[in-house]
Amino acid sequence: MDAIDVIRAKRDRQRLSDEQIDWVVDAYTRGVVADEQMAALAMAILLNGMDRAETARWTRAMISSGERLDLGAVGRPLVDKHSTGGVGDKITLPLAPLVATCGAAVPQLSGRGLGHTGGTLDKLESIPGWRAQLSTSEIAAQLRDVGAVICATTPGLAPADRKLYALRDVTGTVESVPLIASSIMSKKIAEGADALVLDVKAGSGAFMKSVPQARELAAALVGIGVEHGLRTTAVLTDMAVPLGRAVGNAVEVAEAVEVLRGSGPTDVVELTVALAREMLRLAGASGVNPAEVLASGGAYETWCRMIAAQGGSPDAPLPEAAHRHVVEAPADGVLQSLDAYAVGVAAWRLGAGRSRKEDPVQHAAGVLCLVKPGDTVERGQPLLELRTDTPDAVPAALAALDGGWRIGDDAPPAPPLIIDVLR
Amino acid sequence: MDAIDVIRAKRDRQRLSDEQIDWVVDAYTRGVVADEQMAALAMAILLNGMDRAETARWTRAMISSGERLDLGAVGRPLVDKHSTGGVGDKITLPLAPLVATCGAAVPQLSGRGLGHTGGTLDKLESIPGWRAQLSTSEIAAQLRDVGAVICATTPGLAPADRKLYALRDVTGTVESVPLIASSIMSKKIAEGADALVLDVKAGSGAFMKSVPQARELAAALVGIGVEHGLRTTAVLTDMAVPLGRAVGNAVEVAEAVEVLRGSGPTDVVELTVALAREMLRLAGASGVNPAEVLASGGAYETWCRMIAAQGGSPDAPLPEAAHRHVVEAPADGVLQSLDAYAVGVAAWRLGAGRSRKEDPVQHAAGVLCLVKPGDTVERGQPLLELRTDTPDAVPAALAALDGGWRIGDDAPPAPPLIIDVLR
Repeated sequence: MDAIDVIRAKRDRQRLSDEQIDWVVDAYTRGVVADEQMAALAMAILLNGMDRAETARWTRAMISSGERLDLGAVGRPLVDKHSTGGVGDKITLPLAPLVATCGAAVPQLSGRGLGHTGGTLDKLESIPGWRAQLSTSEIAAQLRDVGAVICATTPGLAPADRKLYALRDVTGTVESVPLIASSIMSKKIAEGADALVLDVKAGSGAFMKSVPQARELAAALVGIGVEHGLRTTAVLTDMAVPLGRAVGNAVEVAEAVEVLRGSGPTDVVELTVALAREMLRLAGASGVNPAEVLASGGAYETWCRMIAAQGGSPDAPLPEAAHRHVVEAPADGVLQSLDAYAVGVAAWRLGAGRSRKEDPVQHAAGVLCLVKPGDTVERGQPLLELRTDTPDAVPAALAALDGGWRIGDDAPPAPPLIIDVLR
Repeated sequence: MDAIDVIRAKRDRQRLSDEQIDWVVDAYTRGVVADEQMAALAMAILLNGMDRAETARWTRAMISSGERLDLGAVGRPLVDKHSTGGVGDKITLPLAPLVATCGAAVPQLSGRGLGHTGGTLDKLESIPGWRAQLSTSEIAAQLRDVGAVICATTPGLAPADRKLYALRDVTGTVESVPLIASSIMSKKIAEGADALVLDVKAGSGAFMKSVPQARELAAALVGIGVEHGLRTTAVLTDMAVPLGRAVGNAVEVAEAVEVLRGSGPTDVVELTVALAREMLRLAGASGVNPAEVLASGGAYETWCRMIAAQGGSPDAPLPEAAHRHVVEAPADGVLQSLDAYAVGVAAWRLGAGRSRKEDPVQHAAGVLCLVKPGDTVERGQPLLELRTDTPDAVPAALAALDGGWRIGDDAPPAPPLIIDVLR
């Protein structure tokens, strides 16, 4: 087999055969196909597409490049969740212990943040003592004992994806639905769950800015899941406005704990319950009502055990930022909009996010959205609270927020948080 | 400026700005833009195109990556010719001395062959003593003294093109008209001629298999010439059948000498005269009739001086192949077709061509086409003579010729050699 023939086939709008896909992914992982050849192929795939069967095969080839997580006998159905990323998206934190409390096991292998979207591991690392790296046997033991684990991806899963993603990142070939979908699904399928719920976000704060784009990605993700025999649901959700009130790391953990104790922002509660319901349905454990479990505070104990199992102190105070800056309402009225992207960039600039993979993040930095669209405000009322250990970053954060919110006379129509469910 | 922004722009079907083109070509030449980034950009250009102004600017940027040949005061108009390559295409050999004899100066910087198409330098190197490498001052002196020089491209011309061509070769991105056209024209413009005639070939033996493809390339080439103020004509010619009777190296030199002495195959004479007429027209020297000069043998003396100036012995015997194999007509009839690609591959396998840039060629190997389409043949009459120093190569050459010619009852309609002229 020859790399140029595979590139030419996709360049000339042909389907890639199973043999071509298996060969090119394996040969690229082994360094036989050069970076420049895979870059040309990735651009041809981006521009000419791959159909559902090609995308499923590409995913299979990326899974085959590494190991599959063998979690052994956990004793309950394994169900996983993945979000395509957003601003204030701390849903994994209450969701994993909630679903575990309701009877399924949740192996939640997660990533770190880059740019304006946060990462689950960065958030949890603001808890004193908590560690992200677990061995496979530690993951399996914690799933048996606690039922939920949130930890870093193990390095042996889908190495082809790691190499290909780094290449796509520098060659303008990230924005390909088949490549995005196979990247997500190769890791998720290699984790060995029985079922998967995908939270595919649409809006300014998401990777997919429009609902049709997000729907296309959701359909591709579900298609791969079906082709691999994984019970898969995609929930299409709004990411035009930040989720909840807290955007950052420690501030999001604090909000997740509120939710686990039975209160917290209504949108975070709504989405946590909706995703939990879908996960339990797929796991065949729909006898329990997750809304009741959450409202009663019943999942909080599981949270504490989950955090403690990874060395964290669930009761220890979270880090506090050295500096706070409040943005006040310039007039009476109604908050008409609050742009997720603007808030995400502001939190990033305050230190909550990173620009390069190797950068550290500030645990305590972030933005608190003290009012949400539809809320009535009075002149002088605090709208946003910026937190950082590096006050020099405040002007850049304020610049990012400029134009990112609007006060007017009327309450705007509230768009639905859950746009659609694709099964 | 950032490589990813340039890649994204072309990926998303935008025009590249002058600044983007200048930057990306220069940064790639300097190694600031990585091979994988240029590969992704080349694929985006191949699939989404570049318009005439972008292609002209891309060409300019590639010229600027190196030096321009400074030939000083030659005293006559400088006119150049380029062929996109074919089988049996020895036209440069009689053409350069003919045009010089008629009053213009011809600086013909040429290349070597690869695959089934021959290279002018490989052909001339079959002449004992002849050398291809000249310095710029040697080229200038020979132009003043003889009026014609055929030699190797100097390494300082368009280094961006050399680097980019090697990348396109391994990334399936050769077949882009804007990239092919800018590659050809960057070298030709850097050579500093006042005018240029392009022989753009269409047919099985050419790079462009169909006339519409060849026409598209011809238009792109003329467009770049016009944008750079170079008087440019493209002549569209047939390459379904080999040019002349000889395909190889020494055998093609012998045929060129026949033409220079006033005889030779009619198609070689016709094309040599047509291209000479166009070159002289562009050089403003149309007072002389090249057909008469050629028929009288008047260009042969210039040929001898041109060869001798580069160390060659024009009167020395050319190398003869150790082994000959004749293909005979299996029946009476008319030769209906003789496929240029089949003959080109046969000559290549006999040793006349190379598979890799660093391979040597056999000077004496090749194919003689003893009859051409439309000729009447008798059973047992020799059709093709295969020549090689390595008789083991004959079966592979015969396999390449299998189905490459056909004898039937009727004389086929003869397609025109010169299909069109684009000015």
